[in-house]
Amino acid sequence: MSEPAVDHTADGGPLAIICGGGSLPFAVADAVRKRGRRVVLFAIRGWADPKRLEAYPHHWAALGQFGTFCRLAHREGCRDVVFIGSIVRPAIWRIRPDFKTLRLLPRVLGIFRGGDDHLLKGVTAIFEEHGFRLVGAHAVAPEILMPEGTLGRERPSDRDHADIAKGLALLNASSPFDVGQAVVVADARVLAIEAAEGTDCMLARIAELRQSGRIAVASGRGVLVKAAKRDQDRRFDLPSIGPQTVEGAARAGLAGIAVVAGSTIVAEPERIGATADRARLFVLGVREQAAE
Amino acid sequence: MSEPAVDHTADGGPLAIICGGGSLPFAVADAVRKRGRRVVLFAIRGWADPKRLEAYPHHWAALGQFGTFCRLAHREGCRDVVFIGSIVRPAIWRIRPDFKTLRLLPRVLGIFRGGDDHLLKGVTAIFEEHGFRLVGAHAVAPEILMPEGTLGRERPSDRDHADIAKGLALLNASSPFDVGQAVVVADARVLAIEAAEGTDCMLARIAELRQSGRIAVASGRGVLVKAAKRDQDRRFDLPSIGPQTVEGAARAGLAGIAVVAGSTIVAEPERIGATADRARLFVLGVREQAAE
Repeated sequence: MSEPAVDHTADGGPLAIICGGGSLPFAVADAVRKRGRRVVLFAIRGWADPKRLEAYPHHWAALGQFGTFCRLAHREGCRDVVFIGSIVRPAIWRIRPDFKTLRLLPRVLGIFRGGDDHLLKGVTAIFEEHGFRLVGAHAVAPEILMPEGTLGRERPSDRDHADIAKGLALLNASSPFDVGQAVVVADARVLAIEAAEGTDCMLARIAELRQSGRIAVASGRGVLVKAAKRDQDRRFDLPSIGPQTVEGAARAGLAGIAVVAGSTIVAEPERIGATADRARLFVLGVREQAAE
Repeated sequence: MSEPAVDHTADGGPLAIICGGGSLPFAVADAVRKRGRRVVLFAIRGWADPKRLEAYPHHWAALGQFGTFCRLAHREGCRDVVFIGSIVRPAIWRIRPDFKTLRLLPRVLGIFRGGDDHLLKGVTAIFEEHGFRLVGAHAVAPEILMPEGTLGRERPSDRDHADIAKGLALLNASSPFDVGQAVVVADARVLAIEAAEGTDCMLARIAELRQSGRIAVASGRGVLVKAAKRDQDRRFDLPSIGPQTVEGAARAGLAGIAVVAGSTIVAEPERIGATADRARLFVLGVREQAAE
């Protein structure tokens, strides 16, 4: 994975953070500020949290206002740009393009076809042509990455470890198809593979199948396994987990969650650990090489 | 795929057909009778259709009544057994084991762990130890297999063909993990992979994601692709499609359905073709080698 060397100090100029939903954008902003670098948040209307934004220098922009972003970010002196936070791939008719975006529209429509990797590469190129450098949140704030070992008290059993190994192998095999960063494996059986629906929706499906008796696996068994896609451009699409992932896994009756240490973003690790302890789930960071 | 040679004539004795839900069991029974062989239907309570059963010699049995099945099937002179029709993997507490099943219970519990392949192999072995020969529905009634080419009037476009190729390649890659006989691919993007939820549930998910604007693919694009697992014991778990599959694909806004000719069961091909024509969907049987 080759990435441009990033200047993490204040000399790199202020960091532009394009903010989707959830608490991750603020965790990144706080970490970057602690390192002495200024941040400017560009909040996506409908996704970013207005209350929490007030504590940071920020601008609002709607999806598709790329011209507005370029103008404001250049004026703020930003060159490095981080894109972080949840944002569901939008319906095209919900994007209100400004003039610059309109001119880019044929390319934008083209990159919305095909898988996520394709989308990421297209977006990266467009930013770079406009004088920006897309950097990964983990490059400017490595403290948001999942460490090796567990958050919270619970530990996986041998059976859980076997399920984790099967899940990682399946994610590795399906990775070239630019699909699925998450699977659920229970007692060596693959119960679900994530594609367009997202992790929360997949976990809700497991909960439903279990309640209706269509999954004959005892409660407290099974693992949610997440891993970055093999050829994924890690600069801005690492998989992430938060407290709501733990709650979803608990409702799905799973034993725990396993992610790849060092390439998974964890929002609020203390709250994740506390939530996992209450639900008696393990949350494990496995070593990268175990995933290959 | 090595299978025991089956005597398709009346000399093989009457054929026992263990019937799950849907119309497939009756399509098989009719085809076998047309060939001059007697059939005895063993209807699974809660799944098989009581009305349609009346036209055939039949017995009722609950799930787990393996002793009852053995006694009745031996008395009827049946040696060959076909298992066909929809039956969702049952919750273990819903099985009411009779004495013989109870004695087999530790093994049955063991084979319910792990993937479908594991389940199939275990069940096959148990039947064979009790003097039966599990045969594939397609071996006794080859007319129920999907032919090459289309049912109905619609034809796939070049873009659909590219989506089909991607879907088949993904199914091939995930096959060793004993998961998923179906995927949905639209504009080169994988929208869903089936695991424990079943095809109908997966199609309903696509319809929901589309309605909520979370899938930014135009309506009338995308293909449901189904294929037998590579190492699947084809004797009794071929993928199948019926008119309700076409209806589900239409609600999901897809362009069509592609399955592997010769290794997919089609219930009521005429009704499938008519339903597809009304919904303007294509239903295509692709050649086996295209799937590898």
